[in-house]
Amino acid sequence: MPSLEPPRMGEPYLLTPGPLTTSYAVKAAMLRDHGSWDSDFRAMTADIRARLVALLGDPAFDCVPLQGSGSFAVEAMLGSFIPRGGVALVLANGAYGQRAATALRVMGRAVRVLDKGDFAPPRGAEVAAILADDPAITHVVAIHCETSSGILNPLPEIAQAVDGAGRRLLVDSMSAFGGVPFDTTEIPCDALVSSANKCIEGVPGFGFVLARREVLEAAKGNAHSLALDIHAQWAELERSGQWRYTPPTHTIAAFAEALRLHEAEGGIPARHARYCANRDTLVAGMRGLGFATLLADEWLSPIITTFHAPADPAFEFDAFYDAMKARGFIIYPGKLTAVDSFRLGHIGQMDSAVMARVVAAVADSMAALGVGDCRPAPAALAAGEVA
Amino acid sequence: MPSLEPPRMGEPYLLTPGPLTTSYAVKAAMLRDHGSWDSDFRAMTADIRARLVALLGDPAFDCVPLQGSGSFAVEAMLGSFIPRGGVALVLANGAYGQRAATALRVMGRAVRVLDKGDFAPPRGAEVAAILADDPAITHVVAIHCETSSGILNPLPEIAQAVDGAGRRLLVDSMSAFGGVPFDTTEIPCDALVSSANKCIEGVPGFGFVLARREVLEAAKGNAHSLALDIHAQWAELERSGQWRYTPPTHTIAAFAEALRLHEAEGGIPARHARYCANRDTLVAGMRGLGFATLLADEWLSPIITTFHAPADPAFEFDAFYDAMKARGFIIYPGKLTAVDSFRLGHIGQMDSAVMARVVAAVADSMAALGVGDCRPAPAALAAGEVA
Repeated sequence: MPSLEPPRMGEPYLLTPGPLTTSYAVKAAMLRDHGSWDSDFRAMTADIRARLVALLGDPAFDCVPLQGSGSFAVEAMLGSFIPRGGVALVLANGAYGQRAATALRVMGRAVRVLDKGDFAPPRGAEVAAILADDPAITHVVAIHCETSSGILNPLPEIAQAVDGAGRRLLVDSMSAFGGVPFDTTEIPCDALVSSANKCIEGVPGFGFVLARREVLEAAKGNAHSLALDIHAQWAELERSGQWRYTPPTHTIAAFAEALRLHEAEGGIPARHARYCANRDTLVAGMRGLGFATLLADEWLSPIITTFHAPADPAFEFDAFYDAMKARGFIIYPGKLTAVDSFRLGHIGQMDSAVMARVVAAVADSMAALGVGDCRPAPAALAAGEVA
Repeated sequence: MPSLEPPRMGEPYLLTPGPLTTSYAVKAAMLRDHGSWDSDFRAMTADIRARLVALLGDPAFDCVPLQGSGSFAVEAMLGSFIPRGGVALVLANGAYGQRAATALRVMGRAVRVLDKGDFAPPRGAEVAAILADDPAITHVVAIHCETSSGILNPLPEIAQAVDGAGRRLLVDSMSAFGGVPFDTTEIPCDALVSSANKCIEGVPGFGFVLARREVLEAAKGNAHSLALDIHAQWAELERSGQWRYTPPTHTIAAFAEALRLHEAEGGIPARHARYCANRDTLVAGMRGLGFATLLADEWLSPIITTFHAPADPAFEFDAFYDAMKARGFIIYPGKLTAVDSFRLGHIGQMDSAVMARVVAAVADSMAALGVGDCRPAPAALAAGEVA
């Protein structure tokens, strides 16, 4: 494995996936202006699209990059592939599932939501039961890794239920693709979406949809938006090799470098192994300090982990945030679960040695705050159990 | 004026506005990863918003940046400020006017189009006549500099006509804002839109809307899209100082540096003067070679100029493109007018000395192609006259 590049110029590590800590080579690729219509840039776009399809490993798919944040690409996928008369079932267990449902409501699509609350996983059997009960549902929308809690949802059993009921599956694999294996024979789906600044470790500025070519072909005229029309974006890329509208040229050059580094590291298996080792080091270290994870081990993702806040009244989140920042680590501000908690990400240019330093910084910060006991309240612990 | 920074590492100048040639300092600002929720980054966002409002010089306005290309911000402005029951009149004389009309149609808004063809300017009197005839029209959409031809449309007379008829004006000032004066007393409007990679000379990745605060407040629930909702983006920025959804952090850091350089150069007046000098050097030089501009002098913008293609049968556009690229200049591929033509941009980190080199490169390229006479066909020249 190539050695990782620590942040330079004293900048902190980002434990926020993402934006995340990228390699210096990725950022240095942005030190050049590219003409977005030029053949050299078109070749770069074609290379990126081909590499992403190869990462998925299913030649029935094609790749459509889209300007904006990952949520723009999620909305574009939903609006482009669910026809105006379609009915979507969103499997929600956190903020990203809720956001998909909101996007569908704003664009006027019929939506059903299976709301599993903060973090409980949607299971294949309950999805199968809902689809059997409601034949109007045409599409199911699932979140791969719901980073609100860090849960890795059971996509294979969900996908089998959807496929078994003859419906179409759309996957938000934003924070997981490239760092978690995705096998389309195990997870049959019409499309998935991710973005530049997650497990590929690029910088933020665009997302990408991987979709079956037949699904792309059938999507003409579906979209609720000109800018967020995946069919039109794909058709222009196929016709001219160019993005519709100005692409984020520097971000794309950075992503091309990030894809090269991803491959050099050993692709998805190697990155998955590094991220899992990061999580294991972090979770073991934090448990050693007395912290408890929100989720049981079987639901922990390699991307981000939620820890219960200590019950000790000396714990104050803002002071903890500042103490960690002073020690070189930027964590997520605030929480996304009803249970009092905080989240630490473990993707980006970081390995187990860095995660051990994170644990040390947490221990140090707790001492600075005067928190003597990092264990959560027993009631919080009970509330955090998956039913 | 601070000295300009020529491209490094042998990279070509971009005569495409934009992406355009940025200063090295702007690109070097991207060599750092920022946590998008962190207070340091929120302060950077607040600073950018305040500086853009100050550039407009009207404190009744607020600034809402939005991820994606400039066209995403245009669509967001239209969908957010024209209510679902509104009726828009689009003043079109090129690709960007047509694109605005298409975006409105896709989102289901009622649209009228004043289509002036390739480049003829929409005039105040005809806008006033249309508005008098059609009281259903609620909003007028105008393009400031239509880069399809390079024409600087007569915004003050258009704005006066719209204001006089009691309608609302929305301006696409994408390629002009920051390089062309914009006085809201002379051009009364509800909102205007531009992007990072135009006259401020940042890198592409986001756009921004400058809108009256009362218009922003009234826009809740109008948008056809969750991601492209300017009201929601503004409300979140006001509430938390954060962008909804992951911002393009590196692009934003580059833009903060670009704004500092814009100010150091002397703001809009200085940049306008440099761009005008660029145009004047280019146009005089090209005319000296025998080329003719598509537009009469009064319509030439400081942004980009369209030249008639030489009638000489030895002229072949693709060979000309390659010859210019070999000499260090990337020009726009193809043309956007019915008349046979090509376009050369003159914004970015370039001054008159660079434009003189552009003219020399054109002369050299013509010699390499064997074009002895750069004059257009008389018929093309006649077709290019503004009626």
